[in-house]
Amino acid sequence: MEVTRTNFKDSLNTVYSAIEEADFLAIDGEFSGISDGPNVSALTNGLDTPEERYMKLKKHSMDFLLFQFGLCTFTYDQAESKYVIKTFNFYIFPKPFNRTSPDTKFICQSSSIDFLASQGFDFNKVFRHGIPYLNQEEEVQLREQYEERRSQSNGSGNPSYISPNSNKGPGSIPEEHREYIGRVDNVGLISYRFPKGLHVETLETEKKERYIQISKVDDEERKRRERQKQEREQVTFRWDSSLFPLSPTQGKLVVGHNMLLDVMHTIHQFYCVLPEYFLYCFLRLLDTKLMATTQPFKELINITSLAELQKQLKESPFKSPKVVTAEGFPSYDTAQEQLHEAGYDAYITGLCFISMANYLGTTIYTRYNATLTSHVFARLFLMRIIDIPYLNISGPDLQPKRDHVLYVTFPKEWKTSDLYQLFSAFGNIQVSWIDDTSAFVSLSQTDQVQIGEYWPIHKPSLCRELPYPDVCRVRPGQTAGQGEPGPLYPVLG
Amino acid sequence: MEVTRTNFKDSLNTVYSAIEEADFLAIDGEFSGISDGPNVSALTNGLDTPEERYMKLKKHSMDFLLFQFGLCTFTYDQAESKYVIKTFNFYIFPKPFNRTSPDTKFICQSSSIDFLASQGFDFNKVFRHGIPYLNQEEEVQLREQYEERRSQSNGSGNPSYISPNSNKGPGSIPEEHREYIGRVDNVGLISYRFPKGLHVETLETEKKERYIQISKVDDEERKRRERQKQEREQVTFRWDSSLFPLSPTQGKLVVGHNMLLDVMHTIHQFYCVLPEYFLYCFLRLLDTKLMATTQPFKELINITSLAELQKQLKESPFKSPKVVTAEGFPSYDTAQEQLHEAGYDAYITGLCFISMANYLGTTIYTRYNATLTSHVFARLFLMRIIDIPYLNISGPDLQPKRDHVLYVTFPKEWKTSDLYQLFSAFGNIQVSWIDDTSAFVSLSQTDQVQIGEYWPIHKPSLCRELPYPDVCRVRPGQTAGQGEPGPLYPVLG
Repeated sequence: MEVTRTNFKDSLNTVYSAIEEADFLAIDGEFSGISDGPNVSALTNGLDTPEERYMKLKKHSMDFLLFQFGLCTFTYDQAESKYVIKTFNFYIFPKPFNRTSPDTKFICQSSSIDFLASQGFDFNKVFRHGIPYLNQEEEVQLREQYEERRSQSNGSGNPSYISPNSNKGPGSIPEEHREYIGRVDNVGLISYRFPKGLHVETLETEKKERYIQISKVDDEERKRRERQKQEREQVTFRWDSSLFPLSPTQGKLVVGHNMLLDVMHTIHQFYCVLPEYFLYCFLRLLDTKLMATTQPFKELINITSLAELQKQLKESPFKSPKVVTAEGFPSYDTAQEQLHEAGYDAYITGLCFISMANYLGTTIYTRYNATLTSHVFARLFLMRIIDIPYLNISGPDLQPKRDHVLYVTFPKEWKTSDLYQLFSAFGNIQVSWIDDTSAFVSLSQTDQVQIGEYWPIHKPSLCRELPYPDVCRVRPGQTAGQGEPGPLYPVLG
Repeated sequence: MEVTRTNFKDSLNTVYSAIEEADFLAIDGEFSGISDGPNVSALTNGLDTPEERYMKLKKHSMDFLLFQFGLCTFTYDQAESKYVIKTFNFYIFPKPFNRTSPDTKFICQSSSIDFLASQGFDFNKVFRHGIPYLNQEEEVQLREQYEERRSQSNGSGNPSYISPNSNKGPGSIPEEHREYIGRVDNVGLISYRFPKGLHVETLETEKKERYIQISKVDDEERKRRERQKQEREQVTFRWDSSLFPLSPTQGKLVVGHNMLLDVMHTIHQFYCVLPEYFLYCFLRLLDTKLMATTQPFKELINITSLAELQKQLKESPFKSPKVVTAEGFPSYDTAQEQLHEAGYDAYITGLCFISMANYLGTTIYTRYNATLTSHVFARLFLMRIIDIPYLNISGPDLQPKRDHVLYVTFPKEWKTSDLYQLFSAFGNIQVSWIDDTSAFVSLSQTDQVQIGEYWPIHKPSLCRELPYPDVCRVRPGQTAGQGEPGPLYPVLG
């Protein structure tokens, strides 16, 4: 079911009850981009720690817009041993509901936009009918501003006397018009300032040239316009506080595929400022990508992109679950894929979860034995990290041994081939680029690192300022930062 | 005429000849936003110098996307004493033509997107069919990369050995796949590496999970795909070097309405990195908004937003020019406005220019007497600057006396009302906010400033670090930076 600004309010109850009755929820998001970092390798280094990765995503991915939010609710019908699903596609857009509400800026990444465009994604629907949102902080700010304006227009204080930062709008108005527009600004409170039958609006051209439009309207029309405006506001206010599938209070299991970014965006846009690092919140998450790349499925499944995963889970030894679409909801046909529509991806993700859960011996989700998936529960898949498969949001992260990893700096002309040559004596190595003057070099055997007087790195991030070309040198008990740099060649001799 | 990626190449000649034969061109752009600055007042302070304003726009407005470029060519038909017009709407989108080409990020400002959406702007057309572009610098980079890849795939060197910054793509590929994908990466050169009849592509999911698709295709199909790819590249390469209405070599008069941002964006996206400050380039520009706010029109025209201006220029003492649409071009009906479609706005702008030019006595544009509009020629309208109407791109900017302007700092709780009170002894003042702890205060009479020992500010930007609350104090011959701060109240005594 499509949910836009137009039908959002009317759909809320349907959404609530769907979540209420569900055994578990599947979610997916579509974004305007992935990374505004220098390059992807900088964002996803193969030797990031989960915390480093989280901080990178927080820094480089949160300025993109989550503009389609997919939710699919799965309810088990025991009598007929089948799942009944309800799918929702929320179109999201931070439409400012007046000139003093936050004028959100978001980044678009051409490759991501182009990708969605090639999938037939409807951007017009997002920008014309997207549902506005606020996180808790913004909601509070806006309420205060709103109250302030209300009291001002009731006589106390004068809206024209506001410093620009407390009220961006007037700041941009030529002084001579301030007071006048300041008054007009309190839409909905105009009526007693201006003769009935006149509707006054300050309008802006695209280039922010402002002008005032006074139009004759009868009472009915005027009331209608004000109602419209108030409704817009209410929807804006209600979005996050009332509808938030990931809210801890909901307590439902929420399934996603490679869901780290989806979770971060959802929290960031609709809930609260992202925490410094996940604080054991939102425990009831399960990532199907992690599940598929973990035993026993690791051996059975080759490619774990959502589309491929779903194909493979149709074949033996797996079997597809019995699923029907709830009455009154549009049904998806998995034969003709609609990939990268958030609702469809959420739906597929749910199917994959059920198939894998069934394979683990829990045919009936409601009797689902948590211990069977406890090894993947509350752990989010981490892409392209060599030795840490997941980010743990219910406990401490894994700390793999990295004794065979060297931190190497070199002139920026160097390429992977130069490093291969440099370390040729060590046999097979693995290079993880950090930037164009440094990289991690993983040797195939740990003991090799003991050669000469070189020691492994425990805190690579601390020795990034070393002069190059050099291999970072750390004695036991020292952090890399304390290790003295030394020439590389002795090691190899 | 709509020009998208699909028909761009075929339309080029039509565009060239239209420009070639034209007497003058009108342009307009639609952007994804206006300002990513803190707030509008910070971006457009009433006492900016033209250079300050230009630098602010360069810093805060160029990360938005110009995604619709309107061009309307006007050709005078002397025999029938009418103008023949050709209108073009170019949809623009920086579609990356492969993984190693720049993956442009651009900002969207909700209020601007919402504004265009409310005007029925077609975002899908932009993102699905927009024409890719490169400025000169990017084109050179891309050519080099392209040549590099070509030579590598011819045996010398191996594409997998490239440091991430010289080639972002591979940086994100797991080491173990690098060499393989590295090869596959050279699309168009695959054929001799893989058996004929196999088409190999590396694809990415939206979340940048990469996988390889090998599909059976016959020779025809393979050739077709490679042709397509090459064409995409060519179009990308050609965009700015061949089609650039503002190129100095063109020498045509280019008219725009409030065109500073249009000009800056056009140069920035399609031509070159913006100069530190306009260097007498693009001399043949004329801004109808400046024209309309300058004598003799200043007295005759109240509102100068494009739509309003056009309405007023239909009435006496003005008269609308005779204009017909060239054969084969879609014609606009000014009765039912299509405002904020770039092509239509360009068209209207041209009409306004002709009406005003006619009023100045130049009925036939081709006999147009430049001296009649020399006072506005090569000068771009500056919004919301109190005493400098335009930015001069053909000579030094105006330097109005600002002896009556004081730079005032104060606690951030202060509002405009506090300043009015503070300066009440001076009668009417004008406050231009800088930020929430400083503002310019313009007194109505210059001599007032001589009161006490306080002196005007010649370089306000230099004394922004002064402690507050205070009025910046500058003796003649000193810059504000050299003046010692002093308490405010003595002045008023």
